[in-house]
Amino acid sequence: MGAPPGYRPSAWVHLLHQLPRADFQLRPVPSGFAPQEQEYQQALLLVVALAGLGLGLSLIFIAVYLIRFCCCRPPEPPGAKSPPPGGGCVTWSCIAALLVGCAGIGIGFYGNSETSDGVSQLSSALLLVDHTLTAIDHLVLEMVERLEEAVRTELTTLEEVLAPRTELVAATRGTRWQAEAVAQQLQGLAFWRGVPLSPLQVAEDVSFVEEYRWLAYVLLLLLELLVCLFTLLGLAKQSKWLVIVMTVMSLLVLVLSWGSMGLEAATAVGLSDFCSGPDTYILNLTREETGLGSDILNYYFLCNQAVSNPFQQRLTLSQRALANIHSQLQGLEREAVPQFPSAQKPLLSLEETLNVTEGNFHQLVALLHCRGLHKDYGAALRGLCEDALEGLLFLLLFSLLSAGALATALCSLPRAWALFPPSDDYDDTDDDDPFNPQESKRFVQWQSSI
Amino acid sequence: MGAPPGYRPSAWVHLLHQLPRADFQLRPVPSGFAPQEQEYQQALLLVVALAGLGLGLSLIFIAVYLIRFCCCRPPEPPGAKSPPPGGGCVTWSCIAALLVGCAGIGIGFYGNSETSDGVSQLSSALLLVDHTLTAIDHLVLEMVERLEEAVRTELTTLEEVLAPRTELVAATRGTRWQAEAVAQQLQGLAFWRGVPLSPLQVAEDVSFVEEYRWLAYVLLLLLELLVCLFTLLGLAKQSKWLVIVMTVMSLLVLVLSWGSMGLEAATAVGLSDFCSGPDTYILNLTREETGLGSDILNYYFLCNQAVSNPFQQRLTLSQRALANIHSQLQGLEREAVPQFPSAQKPLLSLEETLNVTEGNFHQLVALLHCRGLHKDYGAALRGLCEDALEGLLFLLLFSLLSAGALATALCSLPRAWALFPPSDDYDDTDDDDPFNPQESKRFVQWQSSI
Repeated sequence: MGAPPGYRPSAWVHLLHQLPRADFQLRPVPSGFAPQEQEYQQALLLVVALAGLGLGLSLIFIAVYLIRFCCCRPPEPPGAKSPPPGGGCVTWSCIAALLVGCAGIGIGFYGNSETSDGVSQLSSALLLVDHTLTAIDHLVLEMVERLEEAVRTELTTLEEVLAPRTELVAATRGTRWQAEAVAQQLQGLAFWRGVPLSPLQVAEDVSFVEEYRWLAYVLLLLLELLVCLFTLLGLAKQSKWLVIVMTVMSLLVLVLSWGSMGLEAATAVGLSDFCSGPDTYILNLTREETGLGSDILNYYFLCNQAVSNPFQQRLTLSQRALANIHSQLQGLEREAVPQFPSAQKPLLSLEETLNVTEGNFHQLVALLHCRGLHKDYGAALRGLCEDALEGLLFLLLFSLLSAGALATALCSLPRAWALFPPSDDYDDTDDDDPFNPQESKRFVQWQSSI
Repeated sequence: MGAPPGYRPSAWVHLLHQLPRADFQLRPVPSGFAPQEQEYQQALLLVVALAGLGLGLSLIFIAVYLIRFCCCRPPEPPGAKSPPPGGGCVTWSCIAALLVGCAGIGIGFYGNSETSDGVSQLSSALLLVDHTLTAIDHLVLEMVERLEEAVRTELTTLEEVLAPRTELVAATRGTRWQAEAVAQQLQGLAFWRGVPLSPLQVAEDVSFVEEYRWLAYVLLLLLELLVCLFTLLGLAKQSKWLVIVMTVMSLLVLVLSWGSMGLEAATAVGLSDFCSGPDTYILNLTREETGLGSDILNYYFLCNQAVSNPFQQRLTLSQRALANIHSQLQGLEREAVPQFPSAQKPLLSLEETLNVTEGNFHQLVALLHCRGLHKDYGAALRGLCEDALEGLLFLLLFSLLSAGALATALCSLPRAWALFPPSDDYDDTDDDDPFNPQESKRFVQWQSSI
């Protein structure tokens, strides 16, 4: 009842988590998330290596295709005007491939923004966690200081005023002890004080890395977009030098695409393992990093009926002591004020302090309850395991599409280029204009070849 | 300190909120959100009317352009082979316009998904609010039932057992009164009981409307995508009937684009007014709908140091009563158990009930604290005023781009169509194939005209 609806692994997480994993000796590796284990690292590296294998195979395929095309061309009669049949098909397939690449770029932009959204959700949840933990610390400090101040000033004044009647002094002493006991109990509630792990720092680190990841993808996407557009322009204008430069750039982007695909696939696989059951891993990691007890961590990370509040006893004791202080102050007011009117001022001040402390105590109870922190934990997991993973899969789709499109383009470009009518010079200063008559004529010749 | 970082109006909200508004008589209207006032409704309708004006102007422009093109064509010598100059420019501008339209469609898909994200964030926040309010109700009910059960059974047994000693019976009666007082105080904390407004219902309504809005946009986007692609196909294949059908479809989509632009602009303007200062409006609306006191609503909607917890007094009184019950039970245990061993069992059972009630009390304090509900309120506002508004602006950009692109295409298409070489029949069964020699020849003729 207390816990809000939390994080549940999505279908993508289940699907990716069920894929088989193997180490370098191809022995199966269990798919539990264990980044510190060598076997698991090898399994992820193997995923990257698969992308490298894909790159190698596609490069070999392109090379074989182009060598076959160059060396096994049927001899043409010199001066033949009609280009070999199938040339149009080559150009069209190149254009279609580049358009598929452009669609992939659109998907890539979407995936990049989705991943960025997910990661920013993670860091804002971490910021909220930090805010809550800091608020607990500050609140406890404020309450303790307020109580100690009351003990130092009002209660001391009261003891001095009531000195003639020893039983009233004893009651005041009792109140002092209760107040000191409350202060001591409260200090035990600031459980994050002195913990070396700062969620703020983690959030800043995550944002820092994410910023560069985002920028790198945007640059890659823009590079590929420029390559696609300039290749299309080169084909339309039959500019040999542009097509040659773009072929080289396509090769570069192909390598980058396969590289990013390897990284994305490995990250997606690792993330799916993490996301299929994040509680245990995060619990252990946080225990190691913070040195906090299992009861506290279980309470916040699980936050269900089965886990009892580890601060329950301290809270109950503080609450009872505060109630006792209240009844003692009321007793003192009844007994002492008629006889010692000067006791009224410190008593009223003490009651005011008690009211404020009780208000703060309720706020502290609310802050310490697992509900708020567990909600942030759920939001962080949803950001990472839903939005960021989904974005990563879109980026994977982009890499796949662009690798396929670029490989097709690399196979077609030299063939399309061979179909361009020979020109005397490579000086493209003037004949870049598609609307000048000469260029129009060349364009017609090229189109007639299609 | 207690309140988590909340919602702040974004730059877009400020910008849109500062635009001047006017009613039908063009008198300025204040830009505070007041959907029930006629003047404000007129201001929003005027925004829709502006889009209608835009549609009218663009239709007039297209008509004038096409009439001028049809009637003021320079006379051509019969049998002239070269098409009029500028024909290539017309076709290229049409293709460029359609490509801009396609880019706009990509932006539209992004905006639609962003709006959907924002609205789903709103409804999930509402679901969380409903969860919290229901949890408070259930918890109060459970605690009250537990206390009443204890009063009925254990305390009655205890009174019967301790009947021989009247001062112990009196102490037991005191405990009974305290327990009854706690139950009464607790019942006052279930503030949402009997309130006619259900956040769950609101969330379901919002999701229902959003589902259809999303679907309508997806259909519009797909329709426009199909129109763009088929128009490009018609241009490439010089299929007259396809271009004619697509011209008519473009006209339809142009009207739809202007219509959606009007709705988006009015919604964006209204949303910016709402988002620039949502607290007052939502406070008033919730007060009217729920009949709850201003103190409770202010506490949850503002949740800062200036607003005190309206449940503070009840909570403090319950807490003190619980502490009193505890000390009374301990007193009874000390006094009664040595003399009446049969009192031990009900006393232990009562202490157990007290412990559970104190645990539940801490949970209730946490649930009642404004922090959790205010966080959900902030998340709902961020969803609506950041993500949904941003998505809406992207949709507006899509509508603008597509209206511009379609208007350009509508101006160019009839001119491009007039440039198609005349064919004897409109039978497109075979000459649709771009690779058959006849089609190739026609394509070359058309390309030579560019």
